[in-house]
Amino acid sequence: MAKKAKVNAGILIIGNEILSGRTQDTNTSTLATWLNSIGVKVVEVRVIPDIEKTIVDTVNFLRSTYDYVFTTGGIGPTHDDITAEAISKAFGLKYEIHKEAFKILEKYYKPGEFNKGRQKMIWMPENAGLILNPTSGAPGFSIENVFCLPGVPSILKSMLGGITNKIVGGEPILSLTINLRTVESEIAKSLTSIQDKNKEVEIGSYPFFQAGKLGVSIVMRSTDQNKIDNCNLEIMKLVKEKNIQIAEKR
Amino acid sequence: MAKKAKVNAGILIIGNEILSGRTQDTNTSTLATWLNSIGVKVVEVRVIPDIEKTIVDTVNFLRSTYDYVFTTGGIGPTHDDITAEAISKAFGLKYEIHKEAFKILEKYYKPGEFNKGRQKMIWMPENAGLILNPTSGAPGFSIENVFCLPGVPSILKSMLGGITNKIVGGEPILSLTINLRTVESEIAKSLTSIQDKNKEVEIGSYPFFQAGKLGVSIVMRSTDQNKIDNCNLEIMKLVKEKNIQIAEKR
Repeated sequence: MAKKAKVNAGILIIGNEILSGRTQDTNTSTLATWLNSIGVKVVEVRVIPDIEKTIVDTVNFLRSTYDYVFTTGGIGPTHDDITAEAISKAFGLKYEIHKEAFKILEKYYKPGEFNKGRQKMIWMPENAGLILNPTSGAPGFSIENVFCLPGVPSILKSMLGGITNKIVGGEPILSLTINLRTVESEIAKSLTSIQDKNKEVEIGSYPFFQAGKLGVSIVMRSTDQNKIDNCNLEIMKLVKEKNIQIAEKR
Repeated sequence: MAKKAKVNAGILIIGNEILSGRTQDTNTSTLATWLNSIGVKVVEVRVIPDIEKTIVDTVNFLRSTYDYVFTTGGIGPTHDDITAEAISKAFGLKYEIHKEAFKILEKYYKPGEFNKGRQKMIWMPENAGLILNPTSGAPGFSIENVFCLPGVPSILKSMLGGITNKIVGGEPILSLTINLRTVESEIAKSLTSIQDKNKEVEIGSYPFFQAGKLGVSIVMRSTDQNKIDNCNLEIMKLVKEKNIQIAEKR
């Protein structure tokens, strides 16, 4: 893929355990932070249950809408791990044993331990690219612009390094955060006018409570450092005018 | 709404800060846990940016697909808080000052503090129902089956008690979790056959690492306690056969 100015992605979290509230998803924030650092903007996240048709339809929508799609969950050895088969159906590809994955897991496990349950993890869409797993052996896989990762956060994190060079990002998205000792309503009007004058900087305003004190985080995001700097100057002017204390800048 | 056996919901998380990875969403898990406890099953979660058309389209899709929709984020006083206006457009309703919300905030703030920024928070779709906010004054609102809550987790949590009686849930979703000292591949085949024999119980299998030890959580979910109990008996039989240690049952 040729380098584009703006590259986007959708994230698909697959798993009943997130929808029931039993498990707190943290993979979205891990993936989004990593993608941002390589110039890919996450535009949408969906969380869906372990239902084949839902996975097929959602993957097909996301992969035709965004430059990249990252799925998490459903690639383990049990009956509720149906992501690999569903992705095969989404692409109209055979669901078959991946020879390289077989070799990797045969070597990873002690003799006799590579049992039927574990062998489920080498079934993938035909011609899938492997995503190596330094933590627990079983690889993830990619097909075209779709990258399928496991749901366990520590394992997922360990696998990102192996695909960074497969993702062609756009210009890195830069950001500057200023934490102010004020409340949103105090600066709302001025912020609106700063946003109107700086359309290419995305300005976010987020109230926080920290160590018993109220504050507002102002987050400026853009691919252009100069534009962030200009925006920052206007915020600093506002801060001075209103005599607001700066708690942190990073 | 008459009481139905199965009642479902979609959750819509609105906010660039979640998509950039800056903020870890915890509202999904809070809402899902609460909804489960009142017999509402969350079927889908979407995270979208602060873009009006995206909010309008997504809300219109979700509200026609699920019994209930819960949105979080974008109802504060700043320029990036556009949820109330977008929801008005989604329903084709006027976006106007809500008289009761005005009275609430006029009383909540000290004289002179109810400034223009804060007055933005009383603009809502016409005839919106208010969701009272015991934490920070500014109410959320509901229109038909859509409930709009703030993004700040502590404030959102404090507002759920006020709408529990507005949600007509189905039969409560019961669950039993058994944590086993084993690995998924050891029990995968037996679990598949237990799931096949117990189609009305949703059986999830989730590996975990805890205090340096590997384990698997088996989660059984159903509206029928007898069916969970039957399923549990079969799991206990499997555990005994394979001589697996039970770490926890709840």
